[in-house]
Amino acid sequence: MVVGMRTITLLSDFGMDNGYVAQMKGVISGISDARIIDVSHEVTPHAVREAAFILQTIVSYYPVGTVHVAVVDPGVGTDRRGIIVTTRSHVLVGPDNGVLIPAARFLGDFVVYEITNKEYMLKEISNTFQGRDVFAPVAAYITKGVVFDAIGKKITDYIDLDFGHEVYSENTVSGKIIFIDRFGNIITNISGVRLKDRLSLGKHVTVSVNNQSHQVLFVKSYGFVGKGELLATIGSSHYLEISMNQGNAAQILSVKEDDEIKIIF
Amino acid sequence: MVVGMRTITLLSDFGMDNGYVAQMKGVISGISDARIIDVSHEVTPHAVREAAFILQTIVSYYPVGTVHVAVVDPGVGTDRRGIIVTTRSHVLVGPDNGVLIPAARFLGDFVVYEITNKEYMLKEISNTFQGRDVFAPVAAYITKGVVFDAIGKKITDYIDLDFGHEVYSENTVSGKIIFIDRFGNIITNISGVRLKDRLSLGKHVTVSVNNQSHQVLFVKSYGFVGKGELLATIGSSHYLEISMNQGNAAQILSVKEDDEIKIIF
Amino acid sequence: MVVGMRTITLLSDFGMDNGYVAQMKGVISGISDARIIDVSHEVTPHAVREAAFILQTIVSYYPVGTVHVAVVDPGVGTDRRGIIVTTRSHVLVGPDNGVLIPAARFLGDFVVYEITNKEYMLKEISNTFQGRDVFAPVAAYITKGVVFDAIGKKITDYIDLDFGHEVYSENTVSGKIIFIDRFGNIITNISGVRLKDRLSLGKHVTVSVNNQSHQVLFVKSYGFVGKGELLATIGSSHYLEISMNQGNAAQILSVKEDDEIKIIF
Repeated sequence: MVVGMRTITLLSDFGMDNGYVAQMKGVISGISDARIIDVSHEVTPHAVREAAFILQTIVSYYPVGTVHVAVVDPGVGTDRRGIIVTTRSHVLVGPDNGVLIPAARFLGDFVVYEITNKEYMLKEISNTFQGRDVFAPVAAYITKGVVFDAIGKKITDYIDLDFGHEVYSENTVSGKIIFIDRFGNIITNISGVRLKDRLSLGKHVTVSVNNQSHQVLFVKSYGFVGKGELLATIGSSHYLEISMNQGNAAQILSVKEDDEIKIIF
Repeated sequence: MVVGMRTITLLSDFGMDNGYVAQMKGVISGISDARIIDVSHEVTPHAVREAAFILQTIVSYYPVGTVHVAVVDPGVGTDRRGIIVTTRSHVLVGPDNGVLIPAARFLGDFVVYEITNKEYMLKEISNTFQGRDVFAPVAAYITKGVVFDAIGKKITDYIDLDFGHEVYSENTVSGKIIFIDRFGNIITNISGVRLKDRLSLGKHVTVSVNNQSHQVLFVKSYGFVGKGELLATIGSSHYLEISMNQGNAAQILSVKEDDEIKIIF
Repeated sequence: MVVGMRTITLLSDFGMDNGYVAQMKGVISGISDARIIDVSHEVTPHAVREAAFILQTIVSYYPVGTVHVAVVDPGVGTDRRGIIVTTRSHVLVGPDNGVLIPAARFLGDFVVYEITNKEYMLKEISNTFQGRDVFAPVAAYITKGVVFDAIGKKITDYIDLDFGHEVYSENTVSGKIIFIDRFGNIITNISGVRLKDRLSLGKHVTVSVNNQSHQVLFVKSYGFVGKGELLATIGSSHYLEISMNQGNAAQILSVKEDDEIKIIF
């Protein structure tokens, strides 16, 4: 791994109407002068998969050596472990509940360490907030050059997580909704790379979701259909998205994360 | 323009419940170690005028040479251009849809460049997220000293935007609501500088809005009327505001942005 | 006090859907290159006690010499004073309405200065936004080494604030709810340090709140009861909390801040 890691990102379901995130930043500030960047603290409470998806979509945009902390942690204070995941280019820190794994797999060649050395935790460890007491100081010490072997020990029985895979048939592809953003864009687990060979820009496609079918245009971007019209596009995370130009597709279609979706060519 | 530009501000309608803003910050972090400051990512989705107003109110508080990125961009991926606007003191980066122009006019002596040089964009440019793929790297390269002529070419046919102007008659002034903040303060486009000559502190004035008239005191600040009472004041952005002491004036009066408002002296 | 103060934290009820916080950060950026950290800007509007609680919970996690700015300020523009509170380890800046005092008392040995020297304020001081015009520049100048005696003068008649104290009887303790967080965790003013001697992990306790009584387990953390079950725990702020594993206790119990709560052993 690289030296001179200078940026720490933070992702959680803590919200920003309280002091929890600020406590983590205080702990980091006392150890390291790494740049601290908030990814999001508005993850749906306890939604491990949602946080895992957001983390996967952001890691590759950060400089080599960035340390990413993700804390969506309903099992805090039980015997669930805390882990460091090292990859070819970045370091991930958080609970062993799967939240770090999709990003790690995306980055490639990852190794998992259980965090065991209390020397790199706060002196007093609460039962309900290991984001502050364990993950924040560990991330800060990593940016100071502390080696992973000093903080913990390698494990292989970490908890895995993935977003499932799309299934192609002759004239359909089936997947599910993995994220809905603020604009109501419906992001699926259907990879845009493979789908591009089956769809043509400017042609209609049938989207079947929530027991309804919709004819929508497959376009390059939102502005290629009229205001308030549905569309299909390969979004900025390289997955198929169903959207509405200047409207909220998820509300109109009454869909939610984890719903199934089928495209008929 | 100045050298040594060291701060980048970010303004968008992306929300913070997803990874979009963090992706932009990752891109910037990889190019520049400029300080990154969030202005807001809670602009109403697609509300170009609202973002333009917020941007206008913040720019002059930043050090000379700050680079401000504003991305409210319903036309992303179509043929709308990306622009850099240079002023006497600051640099603005964003889509060519008017969002940057009120702030530029406020700062004075501005010149507009279309962003054309792919060398200063991400290698892979998505169709739906140029905030990350174009505006973030361009802003970061500007803080590294890359000159505007290298990034694009001067244009004069940029898209303009303004907030309209108040109209005075003998005993009235008419304008409109340009922003409602979290407290329910109703911010109008009626300039406080001129209005001060027509109003007297501690005297009543009639506010006509939403087909209703209200007698309110014109005061220096909220605490000069009783709790729950309406008031008129020259707000911190130097415009006339209608507010309620420790209450929400916008809710009580059922008004929204763009509504007309008249003051009768 | 220490030299080399390099971090400024910001706490307010301004929200992030507008430019107010960004204006404060611009002012700070123009004076000091201290690291700026947002504590929260989502304090309930005008809720001085809520901000005071959040501030108290975060200060001790910051490095010695951090300057904390808290602006929940319904009295802005009236004759309420602006103050600096110096403690053994940190500096607090904000309005003289009690918001800084619980944190100061928690840190210990505090001295209060009224801010009087206009040299350390913006040239033009608005009546409605002293967070930007007074507190932000004062905090920034403090990180530059300006001494407190140059900015103002010591006072002793500052406005006090506390969260009340729990009352023990033979088999009960009574207190009140001082904060409800995003997860619906109900944080009381009942100190965990003393309470630990009266409760046993894994035993039931009766919680009486909002005219209802509930038998809940006293546990180390949320995951020690079933999903959707209520529990009592000593939270990360060292107070008794009533929570629900992966659910929202405050909603289920229909309680709000300031409600009374009684524990029957």
